[in-house]
Amino acid sequence: MFDSMKIERRLDKAAFKALEPKLHEDLLDLQAELIAGRKRSILVLLGGADGAGKGAVLNQLYGWLDARKLRTLTYEAPTCEESARPDMWRYWRDMPAAGEIGIVLGSWYHDVLASHVLDGEGRTRFTERLNAINRFEEMLWREGVFILKLWLYLEPREALARLKALRGKPDRPVVREWEAISGKKQRRHLEAAATEAFRITSTVEAPWIVVPSEDDHYRDAMVGHALMEVLEKAIQPPPPPAPAPEPVKALPDALPKVSILSSLDFSNALPDDEYRARLDIQQRRITRFTQSAKFSKSGLVCVFEGSDAAGKSSTIMRLRQALDPRHFLVHPISAPTDEEKARPYLWRFWRSVPKRGDVAVFDRSWYGRVLVERVENFAAPDEWGRAYGEINDFEHELCEAGYVVVKFWLAITQDEQARRFEERERVAYKRFKLTPEDWRNREKWPLYDAAVTDMVDRTSTYYAPWTLVTAQDKHWCRVQVLTTIADRLEKAAG
Amino acid sequence: MFDSMKIERRLDKAAFKALEPKLHEDLLDLQAELIAGRKRSILVLLGGADGAGKGAVLNQLYGWLDARKLRTLTYEAPTCEESARPDMWRYWRDMPAAGEIGIVLGSWYHDVLASHVLDGEGRTRFTERLNAINRFEEMLWREGVFILKLWLYLEPREALARLKALRGKPDRPVVREWEAISGKKQRRHLEAAATEAFRITSTVEAPWIVVPSEDDHYRDAMVGHALMEVLEKAIQPPPPPAPAPEPVKALPDALPKVSILSSLDFSNALPDDEYRARLDIQQRRITRFTQSAKFSKSGLVCVFEGSDAAGKSSTIMRLRQALDPRHFLVHPISAPTDEEKARPYLWRFWRSVPKRGDVAVFDRSWYGRVLVERVENFAAPDEWGRAYGEINDFEHELCEAGYVVVKFWLAITQDEQARRFEERERVAYKRFKLTPEDWRNREKWPLYDAAVTDMVDRTSTYYAPWTLVTAQDKHWCRVQVLTTIADRLEKAAG
Repeated sequence: MFDSMKIERRLDKAAFKALEPKLHEDLLDLQAELIAGRKRSILVLLGGADGAGKGAVLNQLYGWLDARKLRTLTYEAPTCEESARPDMWRYWRDMPAAGEIGIVLGSWYHDVLASHVLDGEGRTRFTERLNAINRFEEMLWREGVFILKLWLYLEPREALARLKALRGKPDRPVVREWEAISGKKQRRHLEAAATEAFRITSTVEAPWIVVPSEDDHYRDAMVGHALMEVLEKAIQPPPPPAPAPEPVKALPDALPKVSILSSLDFSNALPDDEYRARLDIQQRRITRFTQSAKFSKSGLVCVFEGSDAAGKSSTIMRLRQALDPRHFLVHPISAPTDEEKARPYLWRFWRSVPKRGDVAVFDRSWYGRVLVERVENFAAPDEWGRAYGEINDFEHELCEAGYVVVKFWLAITQDEQARRFEERERVAYKRFKLTPEDWRNREKWPLYDAAVTDMVDRTSTYYAPWTLVTAQDKHWCRVQVLTTIADRLEKAAG
Repeated sequence: MFDSMKIERRLDKAAFKALEPKLHEDLLDLQAELIAGRKRSILVLLGGADGAGKGAVLNQLYGWLDARKLRTLTYEAPTCEESARPDMWRYWRDMPAAGEIGIVLGSWYHDVLASHVLDGEGRTRFTERLNAINRFEEMLWREGVFILKLWLYLEPREALARLKALRGKPDRPVVREWEAISGKKQRRHLEAAATEAFRITSTVEAPWIVVPSEDDHYRDAMVGHALMEVLEKAIQPPPPPAPAPEPVKALPDALPKVSILSSLDFSNALPDDEYRARLDIQQRRITRFTQSAKFSKSGLVCVFEGSDAAGKSSTIMRLRQALDPRHFLVHPISAPTDEEKARPYLWRFWRSVPKRGDVAVFDRSWYGRVLVERVENFAAPDEWGRAYGEINDFEHELCEAGYVVVKFWLAITQDEQARRFEERERVAYKRFKLTPEDWRNREKWPLYDAAVTDMVDRTSTYYAPWTLVTAQDKHWCRVQVLTTIADRLEKAAG
């Protein structure tokens, strides 16, 4: 692949000087439009041989662009903060906001290539990880993050010569792993792996651009123009919403409705004394498992969804009692902030992924995408339609990284909800919990019912199954939830 | 996943009779539009438990639809014809034409599931194959083949009971592999694998629809409505061409042009006597390798592309001389036939994939998509842009199936081409080879030049690299081509 790289390409100083002013001006204009548009962002992945001039390209880009909306994102060996979380966490943390350009050194490809070439990770696993990257990048692209993937290319002989020259310099940049590859055979292995990665991950939306980098002027001009093309795409108005196919409904309208929630047994209840004893047992189990040495390599993510007034908060309180407050955090999820709206919708949840050994509880969660955003038309059908797969991928990443993901739907009947709302209106210290919106939401009960059925059908996976709990009786609900969490922790602890 | 399947769903006879006439009529109307549109086709994958009623559903669909444009595509253990070719060949062979509906029993998922559940193929390989299916289905969808994926679901207990009942019947359908799964543990393994497959391959465009199949009426009504929804999508006018992003050009316009062809050494030549001797040696090598026992498990696919009058035919003739004519076929590729136009563009090449032990030579090939179709605007930018990846996938499948894929670009200079054209005009027996179009094509030389550079850069893979051969001297060219083929065959033979 990229056989044309073997052809020498040069741009002399005069020619570069001739095209540069226009390039500079165009880049600035386009970037200004990107910033004003506040819809899209750009990630420039800058990879390639050592000595090919990644640093020089970076400097050149800072010279050409408005640096206030430009960020360098450098990733090296994971810091303690980073290695305490799933691999992709650090890239999510730094996701540029709409209008921004992030230049990435040491992208998600780096680790995949290093594991394969240096640590001998097998070819199938290598391919699997590249396919996961494809899904990740597709999601970013659909969420408005445009990706420019640049590979600065040097002929192997030239690369070795430059590496040698670099070694002599005292103020040279940080040593990178690729330098460990000195043998000819290993070099060829790296090149083969890189072309395989290019093959699998060169999508129409984000293909790899290989930049011949022997000549500095040619390299910089080509990078500048490639960035210009991506900017041009990123400032286009988004395509009309219609063409994306509406996800097939799980259940045609003509057929009798099925509601997974109505199939639950709402008569479940626990008498007072039994409740206290069983709650105590489950809390102790949870304390024991979360304080074990093994848990420090794991982590617990709990999702609480449910009807309004089903008792999420009071259940979470019982969980909290069992946990060390230094390693426990509740994330109440309501409307996204400006910062969150400027990024892919999963960003706000990735930033709250706990470090290993910690517990994060989400009081409402990413499932808002397929619940409230679907019901209220905040998300288009193709957006919530693809979210099932994106959410499954997200939870898969958490589980692969060793986390235990437990998800609850707390269910009450419509009558019971009315009773609780009225109680909230009556009792002064409960009144703050009730908003006019709560009453309004009740009217959409059948829509939520259908959305919950789809959600459970499509996102209850073997690694992160849903647990539907009837919360008509709060005691029953709390004990069920805590027992499920304890069971899952026990199972994960082996 | 699909937890809501546990809820009983029924539709009594009266209710079914009430909704059926409208369903029947709607299906026929929509199908008529699909047929009249001649743009899209539909594949209905019908999978699920034995005894869930795949046959009954099939009969019902024949009852509802215009059977002239409906085909049942049943795949069981591969026939000799099928097992002599790559796995996907049989599905390509039967690809429905635009306007047709194909109902698939034993789809590409069947083998992937069976290998994993019954033959113990590992999880990583399983995932890899599912990802390959995703790429395949995305390509089909983009080419106008809509896919409806139905899984007829039965509770395991009900499934076992039906299986038992089936066993007693004398005229029961063919035994399938799933019946071999009797143990509870294995059944659960199958269910886990199926949900994993659903998770990975449920895309927005072609999600899995799980159909509760305990009640016949409910099952049939749901299948009918699901098909109706897909038909509705398939008869929509295609989305406007603009929104799909134009693939990034390999080389920005502002930079000096690079042509991989101009970098070749056109002075290569071979004197007459040396030519005969060397040609003879290479032909003998090719004869020897293609007649070895090992080759009967392999196969050879040669692609010849090049400038007009570069000498493709005369080179192919020298290759033919070395081969057994019973196992050798040349496919000259020109404008597609009506039958070919009605299907995804790779179909015409899949149908010509040789069986193992045979040699197929393509005189022009699937690369037309990124050459003439790109240059002449027969394909939209997003179509030829995604073709690089699709072609790489296609050749990857051939190589994985044991074939040797050798690709040649025969290059001559523009001057030499003019000389040969004039000669063709002069010499009577050569005149048939020259058309007015050949002269017209010459004007687009720079466009072809750029297209060839991109093509080689993006599709020269480690498993199927391009070989660029200067054909200024025909002797040189022929010997180079035959040597390359012999070398590749030798390498493949280990």
